Amino acid sequence: MAKFLRVDMSSLEVKEEKLPEKYRKMGGRGLTSGFVLDEVKPDCHPLGKNNKLIFAPGMVTGTSAPSSGRISVGGKSPLTGGIKESNAGTPFAQNLARSGYKAIVIEGKPENDDKCWMLVLDSEGARLEEATVCKEKKTGATVNTLKEAYDNHDFALIGPAGEWKMAMAGICFNDPEYRASRYSGRGGLGAVMGSKGLKAIAVEKKMGKVEIENEDLFKQGQRKLVKGLRNHDVTKPGGTLNSYGTAALINVLDQAGGLPTNNFSSGTFEGAEKTSGETLAETVEKRGGKGMMGHSCHPGCIIQCSNVYPDEDGEELVSCVEYESDWSLGANLGIDNLDKIAEMINICNEVGVDTIEAGVMLGVAMEAGLAEFGDADKAIELLEEICENSALGRVLGNGASFTGKAYGVTRVPTVKDQGMPAYEPRAVKGIGITYITTPMGADHTAGYTIAPEILSVGGELDPLSPEGKAELSRAYQATTAFVDSSGYCLFTTFALLDDEEAMEGMVETVNGVLGTDYTAEEIVEEGKEILKKEREFNKRAGFTKADDRPPEFMREEKLPPHNGVFDVTDEELDSVWDF
Amino acid sequence: MAKFLRVDMSSLEVKEEKLPEKYRKMGGRGLTSGFVLDEVKPDCHPLGKNNKLIFAPGMVTGTSAPSSGRISVGGKSPLTGGIKESNAGTPFAQNLARSGYKAIVIEGKPENDDKCWMLVLDSEGARLEEATVCKEKKTGATVNTLKEAYDNHDFALIGPAGEWKMAMAGICFNDPEYRASRYSGRGGLGAVMGSKGLKAIAVEKKMGKVEIENEDLFKQGQRKLVKGLRNHDVTKPGGTLNSYGTAALINVLDQAGGLPTNNFSSGTFEGAEKTSGETLAETVEKRGGKGMMGHSCHPGCIIQCSNVYPDEDGEELVSCVEYESDWSLGANLGIDNLDKIAEMINICNEVGVDTIEAGVMLGVAMEAGLAEFGDADKAIELLEEICENSALGRVLGNGASFTGKAYGVTRVPTVKDQGMPAYEPRAVKGIGITYITTPMGADHTAGYTIAPEILSVGGELDPLSPEGKAELSRAYQATTAFVDSSGYCLFTTFALLDDEEAMEGMVETVNGVLGTDYTAEEIVEEGKEILKKEREFNKRAGFTKADDRPPEFMREEKLPPHNGVFDVTDEELDSVWDF
Repeated sequence: MAKFLRVDMSSLEVKEEKLPEKYRKMGGRGLTSGFVLDEVKPDCHPLGKNNKLIFAPGMVTGTSAPSSGRISVGGKSPLTGGIKESNAGTPFAQNLARSGYKAIVIEGKPENDDKCWMLVLDSEGARLEEATVCKEKKTGATVNTLKEAYDNHDFALIGPAGEWKMAMAGICFNDPEYRASRYSGRGGLGAVMGSKGLKAIAVEKKMGKVEIENEDLFKQGQRKLVKGLRNHDVTKPGGTLNSYGTAALINVLDQAGGLPTNNFSSGTFEGAEKTSGETLAETVEKRGGKGMMGHSCHPGCIIQCSNVYPDEDGEELVSCVEYESDWSLGANLGIDNLDKIAEMINICNEVGVDTIEAGVMLGVAMEAGLAEFGDADKAIELLEEICENSALGRVLGNGASFTGKAYGVTRVPTVKDQGMPAYEPRAVKGIGITYITTPMGADHTAGYTIAPEILSVGGELDPLSPEGKAELSRAYQATTAFVDSSGYCLFTTFALLDDEEAMEGMVETVNGVLGTDYTAEEIVEEGKEILKKEREFNKRAGFTKADDRPPEFMREEKLPPHNGVFDVTDEELDSVWDF
Repeated sequence: MAKFLRVDMSSLEVKEEKLPEKYRKMGGRGLTSGFVLDEVKPDCHPLGKNNKLIFAPGMVTGTSAPSSGRISVGGKSPLTGGIKESNAGTPFAQNLARSGYKAIVIEGKPENDDKCWMLVLDSEGARLEEATVCKEKKTGATVNTLKEAYDNHDFALIGPAGEWKMAMAGICFNDPEYRASRYSGRGGLGAVMGSKGLKAIAVEKKMGKVEIENEDLFKQGQRKLVKGLRNHDVTKPGGTLNSYGTAALINVLDQAGGLPTNNFSSGTFEGAEKTSGETLAETVEKRGGKGMMGHSCHPGCIIQCSNVYPDEDGEELVSCVEYESDWSLGANLGIDNLDKIAEMINICNEVGVDTIEAGVMLGVAMEAGLAEFGDADKAIELLEEICENSALGRVLGNGASFTGKAYGVTRVPTVKDQGMPAYEPRAVKGIGITYITTPMGADHTAGYTIAPEILSVGGELDPLSPEGKAELSRAYQATTAFVDSSGYCLFTTFALLDDEEAMEGMVETVNGVLGTDYTAEEIVEEGKEILKKEREFNKRAGFTKADDRPPEFMREEKLPPHNGVFDVTDEELDSVWDF
């Protein structure tokens, strides 16, 4: 029987339920978005008892499929007011998949918030235990405390920002070495977890194994996919991601004039080189960080794009310096110092907030005059306000749109109140369309058209041209919705796009595990069904076409160096949903 | 030629334009909402250059029609994100009407905000003058400064809160004795004025007179209306409003169980009597305030419901202690001390924010733990944070919804992000429907069903019953949209509802001035047309039925003493718009 866990935080009861038949062949995002549409009142307060928080590992997560250790978390977002799915790579995802539960649904909320709780899932069963000892503890200290008592478990947890119900709070997971460093960061789901009084979830390792319906087909697919990943320049051992991490994109976007700088007022950054993936790798090597580049977020990843950044003495400072964090806390703030950027990432990880939203928020705060662009020390002070839960911290901790409104700023780069990631829509039109039309709020991972627009992967398109980009974004969004359900890391798609056999392999692994019969075309249709559900939830929550629009300033202010505005028409934007 | 003034704050140009023919017979709210729908981009940033701010006196304003000195201000609201009309009674309205300009349209915004400006309209013409000497000055000091240079003028102006673009900033007008005390308070239009760098507007007295098409008809109507107002218990000299001011409602609503107390957690307040209109009148008399009750907001008002509140030494403290301010800063905060309430009203008036929103915001702040209910001194400290423009002040100055979001509060009594006024929807269903469905955000003046539900004016209905209340609210909203266009004070409607001849008289004055041929039925239809325009703007701005819903807690938490929830169905709410 396919089953899931339902956890009622009002009564503190945990029970096992049969998974509805329609979800038996589903996983990850498809499952979380399905539950949200079916069970969450679209007009509920995101921090009230009627919201729910759903954890679901992907379809193939927990198997030996490469780079598939991902978990989706879903609910109604306190940041956007719409549906949210945010995923992360972590051994926790694999443990949960192997436990036999296809999802955990957290609902209700305790009468008062003097205590906090942890859900434990291990050989002794599933239960809530008091975790008040960790109340308002930062993430690193929380993991350290928890793993003393639960020494064979991996963890999902929130930092103080989540407990304080800040709308940019994320949900943190440990990496294989128990660093509190992997994040379902976007959309404030940490605040939802906090509102329910749930500090953490612990799932024991090796509780069982994922059932595979057709072992031969699975293995055949796995071989093809591994081969594809090992052959592709972006994902192969010693390839771009493995050598430089995602920060390899800093120089690439800067050269394309699409690296948002100083709160999206320019597309190039003087300090790009100093914060590039190349400089990062060099710095890590120079400081003696053996194994610090090419790190994995979960066992079984063969791409290994993560890293651990050391300080000047070679001591571990933070994991990981990801492109989007490097950019948001670097170029976007006019800051060109990797050590300072790493320090800021660490503050975000520890207090438990999304680094992208934090950086976009700081850009808006700088626009408001709370700091000068380029002033890293002042930016760090502002992040410390969040850690202190001060009045200013409560403004900043609620994100970029909120900070903009607090200070009457009109240049606020958000869609559906979520901060835009590291690709400038005026210079890369397809990704702009994704930001604007995805039900998630501005999110590059929702339809990463950067592949053909910038990286010459899956084709080669002029990033400045709006031509055909609505269809492109639609296709990418649909495929992504499926990939986010499969449990595969989005980075597998580089190989999938360029290598037909790798694509076949991916589909075969899914069919092997689930006993399904998907074709490559059908997964796109399956992805569209997921998008429709998400869009339907947002519609019921009050979203309209007016929410699928760029920030006003991007239609009016020309962006250097190309000096163009965002010229995709409203009609083209709306056409993304013509299916 | 009917004409209006267009003021471009980008180029600092002022020009006279012909009023479009369709607006020649219109005034007040009908005019501001028409301009907003025609000229304001619905998706513009409310504080950006594409928003506009429109001032329009009513149809009969400036004539000798009784209690008709009202002005409407319209624009896109930074508080609600929707259309806004907010009106006030002031001699400024009468001057503007007599100047011959049917409206002033303020648009654009200066490149930077180091200076601020004043629009002057007098015998020397219409022009912008620098007003930087008044930058960030409070309202009282601003009026004092301005009237030295412009000694035969009345003023519209903003306080520092408007200049700081806080979303609960109002637009202030002087009363006949030059107190900065009359407000178009709701919806944050003061922030729109601030964003445009416009500190004030000065209009000279007696620039001309309002043209009356049919003097005999006008005079006939005027006589009937004056008679009606002088006969009605609520509006007659020595009647309820004249003797006790609007605060007469404190005891009435308390007895009905509809006086929202401690952030809408009860419908009765132990301290009601101590903050009642009766106690207010007694206190004013005892302290020797001759003429301090029964004060007028503009010359020619025969209701005279305003007041001037003296301190213990008989010295003027503030004008005026209105029911909604008395409630919002009193019962809603568990505060039963009139002197403290008056002090808070004064702080709001001086910094330039809406007293209703301020009180609802403080209730939410108390819910968040920033102060205890009943702690007036701490409440005053919180208001002082606004005056200091501190980080906390920026949170609070952006209103109740914003403060709730900043602190993760779920019991937030707002609709469309505007704070609910002094009547509890769970105890008075009709007014709840008005709050929820009006395009303005929660607003009692948009369809004051309190008349038949509580005051036995215009009928007598059970306030607790939802029966027939959607139709009731629709009829009141439509009539009100016309009254708000006419220039008449809403309080004339008590007589209009109970006295057919008074109603005839009102319509005759309008027909007399404009040369129109309205019947009493037709003005309701005219009101509906205005509502449709407002609703259309909101629709284009992205509003849906999901925005016409009560706060979640009012559907779930029972309100003492009647222990009912808000039980008007979604279908009934939506039916308000079936016309």
